[in-house]
Formats: sequence, structure tokens, C-alpha cells
Amino acid sequence: MALIELMKARTSIRKYSEKEVSEELLDSLLEAAARTQTMGNLQLYSVVVTRSAEMKERLAPAHFNQPMVKGAPVVLTICADFNRTSTWCRNRKAQPGYDNMLSFVNAASDALLYAQTFSCLAEEAGLGVCYLGTTVYMPGQIIDTLQLPKLVMPVATLTVGWPDEQPAISDRLPLASFVHHEQYADYSPQDIDTYYFAKEQLPENLKFVEINKKETLAQIFTDIRYTKRDNEALSQTFMDTLRKQGFLD
Amino acid sequence: MALIELMKARTSIRKYSEKEVSEELLDSLLEAAARTQTMGNLQLYSVVVTRSAEMKERLAPAHFNQPMVKGAPVVLTICADFNRTSTWCRNRKAQPGYDNMLSFVNAASDALLYAQTFSCLAEEAGLGVCYLGTTVYMPGQIIDTLQLPKLVMPVATLTVGWPDEQPAISDRLPLASFVHHEQYADYSPQDIDTYYFAKEQLPENLKFVEINKKETLAQIFTDIRYTKRDNEALSQTFMDTLRKQGFLD
Repeated sequence: MALIELMKARTSIRKYSEKEVSEELLDSLLEAAARTQTMGNLQLYSVVVTRSAEMKERLAPAHFNQPMVKGAPVVLTICADFNRTSTWCRNRKAQPGYDNMLSFVNAASDALLYAQTFSCLAEEAGLGVCYLGTTVYMPGQIIDTLQLPKLVMPVATLTVGWPDEQPAISDRLPLASFVHHEQYADYSPQDIDTYYFAKEQLPENLKFVEINKKETLAQIFTDIRYTKRDNEALSQTFMDTLRKQGFLD
Repeated sequence: MALIELMKARTSIRKYSEKEVSEELLDSLLEAAARTQTMGNLQLYSVVVTRSAEMKERLAPAHFNQPMVKGAPVVLTICADFNRTSTWCRNRKAQPGYDNMLSFVNAASDALLYAQTFSCLAEEAGLGVCYLGTTVYMPGQIIDTLQLPKLVMPVATLTVGWPDEQPAISDRLPLASFVHHEQYADYSPQDIDTYYFAKEQLPENLKFVEINKKETLAQIFTDIRYTKRDNEALSQTFMDTLRKQGFLD
């Protein structure tokens, strides 16, 4: 099936069968994903593959013990990595200057583009995957567990396995809501009403609002899921961790 | 052709034929790409489509006048966007708290994953694309040109068109160089020699070193392409721009 058809039908998979993901298959996908575009062809990323029960157990708390961590045969932690390139430079009479924010942004971009190609390839092979957004919440725990050196920072985690569920396809905003022509056209109240109407009227979202005793779906996000207080605390942790990893020297 | 075969043969395309990219095709790709995974299903990105010669002319300097900007029928600027979501919240009696670093990281991740799905879909459709790494060098110029409001930050640019060149496939590091099992294994001098040998011996890289009168390929990167001095200045600009866009309030 063409990727465009696969994408239209895809969903994140959080429950996996007992069946193993062979090393051969995983390696073939990890290797093909490396054809992804990369800055100066430096490949500013590393992937840590977790298969052992012990390491999944140790990673789980950093991901709020979401069951996919222990339930998936394979967990991939995709990292922005300027350590390998900097080591290469030092071993070649070259002085690396990659201990700064721009270099983190460049390496994180490489890592995320790589991760998404991998995700598409894995889904094409029939595997199910799920990103864990918690990766950037407690990066320090992940760094300690995986022994990531300076200039390596986790930016995405994918759980990978053979699907053992068939979730319904989730909704998306209409194309016009996120595509602008020539210049950014800011959103009028009418635009917002139009673009968010279908999402707000979904039965599961109406129920969500009701059981949480909120007035609007947006309040679920601001008051419960992604609060200002949490975001500010996690922003501080994120910057402290970037500093500890040597990206803000 | 399966995506895995497409990936193995892919190259970035910098020269485009005169043939237009139809709105219908572009929209179908932009819409399918929106099936990409996204934080809380919020789709924290926007895409600004540039087709007009005037706007390409105005964008070009922010990209160091790389010829692809004016030479491509379509230029896509993919932005981390918490403006739309925050506007939705304010219009729904919810107080958004997304004016911080973590929210930028989340939105940038959404935007980059979206960009890479789009890139795969475009290549599957026979289009050629090229990322412009310059996007994060002078984001202020892009913001002014595209009139991006607060909480919108450009993170990737893709030039898109029908290929008018067939470049040779570029090299990649071996799989073992960027994949770690269970924990990160730091690189010995011998590892570096092994992993970078093929790249350092490529005729074009040997020539690059020679014509630039350098001792090693790594010095091309540290002394010419991505210098410490440039990286530090651009890091400052990047953080200043994030502040101006309201992500560090």
C-alpha cells in the first residue's frame, strides 16, 4: 500500500502482541531511516534500543509508568547527538564548537526527522508505534538510565511492536486551519468556531468535558492535561538538563 | 514502490523543472501529512505556502539566497504554532499557559514530525524536496516576511518541485555508529576510525579537504561550515527570537 493510503488509515498503537520484533527487521528499518535528510550529512542523532525487561522497568517511571514502556517488545529512545561528531572532530585535530543552543536545535531537528521516517517505515512493515511525549518531561531520568554523555539529549521515544488493538482513527483539524497562503492569516473568532466545531462536538470529547466538570474542551487542556504551572516547571527542568548536557556552555 | 525502497534511493533535489505543482496535489499531501502523530492531538504547527515570485524574493535573503528558494515552484515554511491553540483556549473561557520553553519544544516536535511525513509523501508522489537549514539562522527575517504572530516560530523550510536533476546518493554512517543497545556506548578512537573511514575516503571529501587547504575533513565542519563563532552568535539570535515570539515569557 502506498504511504499516502497508509497515513490516511494510521493510528498510534499502545497494545502489542507477544510476538517479537526480529533484530533483522528492526535493523533494516533503522538503517533505511538513516536516508532521512540531515544537516551537513552529519547525522546528529543516536538511537538507544531497549529490549531487556530490566531496562524497561528502569525507563518506565520517566514516562509516568505508561504501560506501553513495559508492554512493547522494543522501546527506542531517539537522541539529539553532537557527542559523536564532536569526538570525531577532536580525534581529527579539529575544535568542535557545538556546545550551544543552535547546535541542540540542529541535532534535535535531525533526530526528530529521523524518528518520523522510522515511524512511517515501521507502520509500512505492519508494526504499531507510539510516541511518548513524556520524553522531554523528565529527561534527566532517561539520561541517567541510558547513560547518555554530554551533548546527547533524548528528544523522542517510540514504543514498537506488533499491534494487538485496532483503535478508531482520531480526528484532525481541517486543512484550512493550519495552511496559510503567502502570509500568516491570524484567526478570527469565527475561524476558530469553524475549525474546532467538529472536534468539540465529538461524543468522546463532550463526555470528557462532562465527566471532568468543565465548561469547554479547551479547559481540559489548560486546566488538566497541559497546565501553565506544569509547563513552567518542566521548562525549567528542560533548560537545566540542556545545561547539564553541555548545550548551554 | 514501497517507502523503504524509495528511502534507499532518495536524494535531496535542488533543481526543479518549470512544471507547476498543482494545488490539488499539494493539498492532498498537506492533508495526508496531518495524520502524523501530534501532542494531545492539538496539531501544534502551521504551514505557510509560498508560490508568488514576490514572496520568494523576500524570503530568499533569510536563506542566504540559496537558489532553490526562487527556483522552486513551492516553498513551505513549517512553523511551531501555539498561537492557534492559545486563541482557541481564550475564545473558550480557558487560560492558555503555552508561553514557555517546553511548549516551544512540543510545538517544534509536532512541526518537524509533520514536515518529515510531508517530505516522504512528496517524494512518493515523484516530487523532489530540499530542507533549508538556514530556517533557524535568521528566523526574524522569516517572521517579518510571513507576518508570523507571537507563539509562532519557523522551524523548517522545504522547497518543493518536480526534479530537474538526478544527484548521486549521498553516503551515510554505518548502522552500528548511531544505534546503541540498552545503554549508550561512548566512542573509542578506534570506533571513530572505523565509522568515519568510508566518509573520509570519499573522493569528493578528499578533494574538499585539499582545495580548502585543511588537514582533515572534520576541520571543514569546525573551521568553515559550522564554526563555534557562528554557532554562538546564531544561538543568541535564536533565543532572542524565541523571546520576541513570546515563548520565554
